[in-house]
Parts: sequence; C-alpha cells; structure tokens
Amino acid sequence: MILELARIDIKEGTNQDFETALETAKGVISQSKGFQEITVKKCIEQANRYILLIEWDTLEDHTVGFRESDLFKEWRALIGPFFLEPPLVQHYIAPLPPDGGV
Amino acid sequence: MILELARIDIKEGTNQDFETALETAKGVISQSKGFQEITVKKCIEQANRYILLIEWDTLEDHTVGFRESDLFKEWRALIGPFFLEPPLVQHYIAPLPPDGGV
Repeated sequence: MILELARIDIKEGTNQDFETALETAKGVISQSKGFQEITVKKCIEQANRYILLIEWDTLEDHTVGFRESDLFKEWRALIGPFFLEPPLVQHYIAPLPPDGGV
Repeated sequence: MILELARIDIKEGTNQDFETALETAKGVISQSKGFQEITVKKCIEQANRYILLIEWDTLEDHTVGFRESDLFKEWRALIGPFFLEPPLVQHYIAPLPPDGGV
C-alpha cells in the first residue's frame, strides 16, 4: 500500500465550500483503479490548511492511472478553484522492519 | 481524536539508525497519557524524509502532557540527533460533516 499525502492550503474563508466540494470529489476519486481509502483532516493551527491521506494499491495507480484520467480532471475541477497554491503531494511507504522483512 | 502530523527530515545516510532508534522511541511515547497510536512512513520521493502520524485523545495530551514530561526528553534524546532541522509538527481534526453534526 502506498500513502499519498497531499497538503492543501485554500483561499481564506472558503472552508465551507471547499469541504462541500470535497465530499463530491471523494465520490470521483474513489472510482479510480487501485484507490483504497481517503481521509480528510483539517489543521488546528492553520485554518486554511487541510491534508488528504489517500491510500493506493501502487504508486502508478495514483501518478499514472488517476492523474492521466478524466476522473482527475473532474476531481481537480471540483476542488482546484479553492487552492491558494499548488498542493504539496508526496508518497509514503512503511519502512522495512529492522530485520529487513526476512 | 487529534492527529499529530510530524514531518521529519533526517541527516543523509542515517536511515537505518534512525529507524532503529524510532522503534525504541515508540515504546517511550506509547506510555504517555492520551496516546492512542503511531504510524511511521518513509517518503518515496525524498529518501531522508519521514512522517509520523500520531493519534492522541486530546491536543493537550500531546502539547502539555507529553511535551512537558520526562518521556518527551527520553523520546527526543533517542531520535533528535538524527534531525536535519526541527520537525514540522501540526495537529489535525476531522472536519465537521456538512450538516454540522446535527
């Protein structure tokens, strides 16, 4: 499993509309091949900051399968207008256990 | 539940030692009041970057209870030496459902 961590800073005062759009957008991304789960969290210290924790089967399910799809265009059209700047997106994996998994 | 997201960039080439120290450090933080769970993930795009996803009962369980404790000193003594710079730590909550939870 690959964890996509997307940190999104939105334009001030648009929280309610962004959160509503995100509810719709969840229904879009969840149709993509290899999508497992999405969790949305709101920052306590910074009112216009959110993180999305998105689990994918593989890295390519996100970076190729989703990003090059029409679903991505739909997703981005829904939530993109709220972005203050391009989101910071990185991917994470579980580190190997100390014995290297053997 | 409060999610603490800590992004840690470590000194290059210390991954193995950092991961080993973190295994010990998990046993320290997990003794703190209000601690629920910790998940460690390693960045794919940036080899010296990790995130810790730590769940607490309340914000104060982390910011006061843990940070002002001897356990924190122990935790920081274990993993602090690997930090390239001070970690970025923020706290997150689930946004309210669209109906405000009513």
